[in-house]
Amino acid sequence: MVDDLLPALVELRRDIHAHPELGYKEHRTAALIAAQLRAIGCEVHEGIGGTGVVGVLRHGTSPRTIGLRADMDALPIEEEGAVAWRSTAPGAFHGCGHDGHVAMLLGAAQHLARTRRFDGTIHFIFQPAEEGLGGARAMVEDGLFTRFPCDRVFALHNWPDLPMGTIATRPGPIMGAADKFEIVLTGRGGHAAIPQDTPDAILAAAQLATQLNTIVARRIAPTASAVLSITRINGGHTHNVLPASVTLGGTVRTFDPAVQDTIEDALRAAAAGVAMANDVSFEVRYDRYYPATINHANAAAEALAAAATVGDACVAPEPAFTSEDFSFMLQACPGAYVWLGQARVDAPGVPLHHPHYDFNDAVLPIGIRLHVALAERHLAIG
Amino acid sequence: MVDDLLPALVELRRDIHAHPELGYKEHRTAALIAAQLRAIGCEVHEGIGGTGVVGVLRHGTSPRTIGLRADMDALPIEEEGAVAWRSTAPGAFHGCGHDGHVAMLLGAAQHLARTRRFDGTIHFIFQPAEEGLGGARAMVEDGLFTRFPCDRVFALHNWPDLPMGTIATRPGPIMGAADKFEIVLTGRGGHAAIPQDTPDAILAAAQLATQLNTIVARRIAPTASAVLSITRINGGHTHNVLPASVTLGGTVRTFDPAVQDTIEDALRAAAAGVAMANDVSFEVRYDRYYPATINHANAAAEALAAAATVGDACVAPEPAFTSEDFSFMLQACPGAYVWLGQARVDAPGVPLHHPHYDFNDAVLPIGIRLHVALAERHLAIG
Amino acid sequence: MVDDLLPALVELRRDIHAHPELGYKEHRTAALIAAQLRAIGCEVHEGIGGTGVVGVLRHGTSPRTIGLRADMDALPIEEEGAVAWRSTAPGAFHGCGHDGHVAMLLGAAQHLARTRRFDGTIHFIFQPAEEGLGGARAMVEDGLFTRFPCDRVFALHNWPDLPMGTIATRPGPIMGAADKFEIVLTGRGGHAAIPQDTPDAILAAAQLATQLNTIVARRIAPTASAVLSITRINGGHTHNVLPASVTLGGTVRTFDPAVQDTIEDALRAAAAGVAMANDVSFEVRYDRYYPATINHANAAAEALAAAATVGDACVAPEPAFTSEDFSFMLQACPGAYVWLGQARVDAPGVPLHHPHYDFNDAVLPIGIRLHVALAERHLAIG
Amino acid sequence: MVDDLLPALVELRRDIHAHPELGYKEHRTAALIAAQLRAIGCEVHEGIGGTGVVGVLRHGTSPRTIGLRADMDALPIEEEGAVAWRSTAPGAFHGCGHDGHVAMLLGAAQHLARTRRFDGTIHFIFQPAEEGLGGARAMVEDGLFTRFPCDRVFALHNWPDLPMGTIATRPGPIMGAADKFEIVLTGRGGHAAIPQDTPDAILAAAQLATQLNTIVARRIAPTASAVLSITRINGGHTHNVLPASVTLGGTVRTFDPAVQDTIEDALRAAAAGVAMANDVSFEVRYDRYYPATINHANAAAEALAAAATVGDACVAPEPAFTSEDFSFMLQACPGAYVWLGQARVDAPGVPLHHPHYDFNDAVLPIGIRLHVALAERHLAIG
Repeated sequence: MVDDLLPALVELRRDIHAHPELGYKEHRTAALIAAQLRAIGCEVHEGIGGTGVVGVLRHGTSPRTIGLRADMDALPIEEEGAVAWRSTAPGAFHGCGHDGHVAMLLGAAQHLARTRRFDGTIHFIFQPAEEGLGGARAMVEDGLFTRFPCDRVFALHNWPDLPMGTIATRPGPIMGAADKFEIVLTGRGGHAAIPQDTPDAILAAAQLATQLNTIVARRIAPTASAVLSITRINGGHTHNVLPASVTLGGTVRTFDPAVQDTIEDALRAAAAGVAMANDVSFEVRYDRYYPATINHANAAAEALAAAATVGDACVAPEPAFTSEDFSFMLQACPGAYVWLGQARVDAPGVPLHHPHYDFNDAVLPIGIRLHVALAERHLAIG
Repeated sequence: MVDDLLPALVELRRDIHAHPELGYKEHRTAALIAAQLRAIGCEVHEGIGGTGVVGVLRHGTSPRTIGLRADMDALPIEEEGAVAWRSTAPGAFHGCGHDGHVAMLLGAAQHLARTRRFDGTIHFIFQPAEEGLGGARAMVEDGLFTRFPCDRVFALHNWPDLPMGTIATRPGPIMGAADKFEIVLTGRGGHAAIPQDTPDAILAAAQLATQLNTIVARRIAPTASAVLSITRINGGHTHNVLPASVTLGGTVRTFDPAVQDTIEDALRAAAAGVAMANDVSFEVRYDRYYPATINHANAAAEALAAAATVGDACVAPEPAFTSEDFSFMLQACPGAYVWLGQARVDAPGVPLHHPHYDFNDAVLPIGIRLHVALAERHLAIG
Repeated sequence: MVDDLLPALVELRRDIHAHPELGYKEHRTAALIAAQLRAIGCEVHEGIGGTGVVGVLRHGTSPRTIGLRADMDALPIEEEGAVAWRSTAPGAFHGCGHDGHVAMLLGAAQHLARTRRFDGTIHFIFQPAEEGLGGARAMVEDGLFTRFPCDRVFALHNWPDLPMGTIATRPGPIMGAADKFEIVLTGRGGHAAIPQDTPDAILAAAQLATQLNTIVARRIAPTASAVLSITRINGGHTHNVLPASVTLGGTVRTFDPAVQDTIEDALRAAAAGVAMANDVSFEVRYDRYYPATINHANAAAEALAAAATVGDACVAPEPAFTSEDFSFMLQACPGAYVWLGQARVDAPGVPLHHPHYDFNDAVLPIGIRLHVALAERHLAIG
Repeated sequence: MVDDLLPALVELRRDIHAHPELGYKEHRTAALIAAQLRAIGCEVHEGIGGTGVVGVLRHGTSPRTIGLRADMDALPIEEEGAVAWRSTAPGAFHGCGHDGHVAMLLGAAQHLARTRRFDGTIHFIFQPAEEGLGGARAMVEDGLFTRFPCDRVFALHNWPDLPMGTIATRPGPIMGAADKFEIVLTGRGGHAAIPQDTPDAILAAAQLATQLNTIVARRIAPTASAVLSITRINGGHTHNVLPASVTLGGTVRTFDPAVQDTIEDALRAAAAGVAMANDVSFEVRYDRYYPATINHANAAAEALAAAATVGDACVAPEPAFTSEDFSFMLQACPGAYVWLGQARVDAPGVPLHHPHYDFNDAVLPIGIRLHVALAERHLAIG
């Protein structure tokens, strides 16, 4: 069905891999996408939310619309694998498979453009800067869904933990909110033998670390899921000087904004209280990165139904605690985020963001067919 | 020298022992004292600071003055010993030897009144309510030292930890300040399986107990002496209900008012901070009982010199953490507090406040001679 | 369909309510049940696992079998409500609705016995001692499922949190494992001013309480559900004596035996480690009460299908942390536990175990029909 | 009396300052000392405990002996002051005034050798490596006091905290024991969102830091002096990876070996216990550096008596928590360590070990006279 398209798409995927571009700098990639979309007859809009591109493909008379999204940016890390199409850009690397996401969505566009077995409008959405820079939010704020209204929006992500052929999603949370925090507790520092002259920032940090490690156990419902992990604690470097300050840092992972609020509030209160108890000053930096990615129940069901026509569809039993900025699109439009297994039968998948990661090209036809199925089912003729 | 006085004094001591009176209710004891003082020619003033009595004995022309103090009250506990002169008053007992203190000071008054080997004025001060009720403060506030000015004031206390014949004191702190505290941390209580609905008062109490136990180590000079002990922690009584509140109680012992302040402040800040960190409310009750008893250096030296003429005088290497309301007199007048060993050679002393305690009558002549020596040396003739 | 049976059943339910019997003492209730089962033609077996009764009803030739279970025992608490059928037995009270469970299952037996629209064997299981005494385990250990083999076993429990007419269950865990623990930390006790002579049991308890409150956060998967709540901490009662020991007690609630094991192990290690760090001795009592009640997926689906024919069937989104000894039957036989809403539209339900609780008789026909549906569907003719 | 000696001694002191030598490398300094001792008629022994030198001066017939000790080594730090006699050796600096100590003791030797107002034997002891390398212990272990028996041994140390002219010492502890510790707690490390897979080394470190900060408060007598300060805590450096290990380091300062033992034992037990409670492994390194310097009471009294003849003698009210390896000599021989005020009236002293520190040459005659007085009084003629 889409086999004839694959050789060129594999070549394209590897070409993008060899020329990775960091968030909001996807100029070559976006231009390449725009050219291909134009070539198949899409109406093309560029520069949305930075370097974002939207291709519009209409057919028939139905007012129904669907959005299909891929992300374009690379990671700011060095590739260490030895593939022939290895990154030629120092400090940039398609270590999350966005090169494959682009290829799959372009392949679906090519197939849909030539077969036209749908009635309605398809928006092919290519977003910039998914990796930590909020390109999805930028596009939404730039009017994505008002300019290109969608009944539904879907995104696929390759998933090294699942075998190739398995397609999984779930209603409700599928990806987490990953917040970062840093707390600095500051006394004055002083001689280790004169404790009475120096509020003890290390003692304060110890009490605070303990306190923070009780929040998940005591402040949120046992049936809710959350993590608060302190991942670094640093202060002092000699054996006879009390340090002026100690820094604690870590991450908070949640699926529910109310739980996220509870934890941030409790963390701030803990820092303030422990600082008061220990006579030190404190500074809290709490960065909310991406919100949880929460699939709409109906859209998830539709995705599973579509998936069942192209592979082994399954309900993911648990969400993942990593985060994804497609969450911003799902706050603005009903839709679902879908995991596309890419592990080879004989080998476990190299994890995302690993310096040896590479997108599995054998997954391209599965992803293409899933995009096509989502579009053809939502915009079913007659 | 004073031996002829002893039979009557022993009888008197045992009579007082058999008729103990609690703080501010020492009517019989005070009347008995006043009568004896009058009998030997003292000018007697009664009703000072409640039931306090002052006997004034003047001789010669010197303006020098000295105060010698004894305490009169009994303890509100039941005697369990089997002495023939056992307490006849239920719930009252001379378990701290104030009966002996009275007898020694009356003996000294008798001796001094008949020998008159001094030049100046002696004030025999019999105070009420030493045991927790601040009779010394009451007398000071009632004008004790303005009405009966003293260059020096001394008090003796029998000391079961020292052998009979040993007399000890020290410059600076000799008895501690013993404060009491109680902290109540209050959440809301609730079902053990729904922690998110209930600030956890037990967790807060645990964090607070830990915090409080660091204060002595971190907030006061290592060379300063202090204790903060939490002696009770209570909250909850079932296995499936989170208690609404937990109570912590304990004691703080210090020798230096600045250290006392530091600890109280740190305790209050700890309670406030830990409460904030745990979202519970808190209440702190901090009761300062008696201040530290701090001997004036010169007066302590004089006491040691006088002691050396009647027994084995020694500098106490360390103060005791128990407290004594003679501290109030030493805040108003230079002086010293002196320990009078009362342990028999062949037996360790029964401790003060123990239900089997009894004053050792064999100590009477030593105490009398020490009072006399203090007076005769301070008011030395010519 | 079953309406003609109701007047007698309501009377029966109230009669049982008025004559509650505690666990393993359900002699009157069991006799009454046995008589009714015999009256309708069941083969009756008594004295199973103590006072348990099984009624066997066979029809047709199919080897298929089903078990339907009700519990018979009352709670050891005093009824405080004012119903006409109030408990006449001091200290015993049907505060969990087992009276209604018995009536519903007898009603179903009556209906099934006269209609006989099934092909196979039905075991009506009336168990003793559900409230904390493990009557279900006693029956299983007494050979329940070897003597009366069941393809499936189902139990209904009235549910005051759900509106009458709603029937809910879920695959996997539906009721929790509720463990109890008590930890005693023992130093020596001693004077508050001499901390160096006394390992501090209160400090140890504080450190342990903190440590325990981190277990759920750090030792189990964020997506797993568990509670560890310390509900009591008690030691010491004066302000100047360090107590010899402090006791911590509380509960652990889990749905997964592996999580339960992890928590018990971590609790024991925490107690041992904190005791070592604080030089105190320790004793841990950890009582596993009932295991989690874990529905078999197929049986839960069958129960939901049956429920849909008699009321509003719904998948319970979350299990309850309270526990139930039907868990032992589900360890021995596939089956499911089902919640039967009993809240009136105009009033929230009085919770189970509340002294004013009463079974809602209007639920009787729903429960009867559900039992009947479960049996008729599993033993469907032809 | 000694004024004529001063110009050459000042020159010598500055020459040594300009040519500092680190511990056990004091070859030039030792040679210079040996030459001067020989020049005045001492019997000279070199190479004792490394580079140590002992000069023996005998007079009369008394068997009495005294040792007077100076230390010779420089600090391994860079001088930052601008004195004309600034260090010419990179990375070495007489920042503790040992140059002055050598000059004072040589001056005393010169004076005593020419005046000979004593009856007995004087040992002038010049030790290597006082700064952290235990030169005093090396000399003692090399037979110092068996080869050169001393009734008494004294050492002087310039003291910037006291005004010039003040000489202070005290019976009992005068300098502390300064121990160092390092504790490494090791889990496994892992992803911050998967806490259940990784014992949490940061939580363990927090609990341990809290526990350690209670030791001084709870395990030693309130009247004993000690410090345990944690001065560094380090683990982790990202926001999403739990570190494999955390390191705590710090210092313990004590005056009493029994207290030192108690603290080390409690620290080790705390590490072991907290590690067990948190399922991490642990490693403790506890380095005892120098023991407390404990003056013998009689020797301290003799030093004060001698000091009173050359300056303002006073009993130091408190010991210092810094440490000194003269402690090893005092473990082998009765003696005392004495502080020699060197602060100018108009300026506070630059502290010891400060890069701008310099010995105050105006103190030379005071130190010489004190050495002389100690010798002449202990070896008084007939």
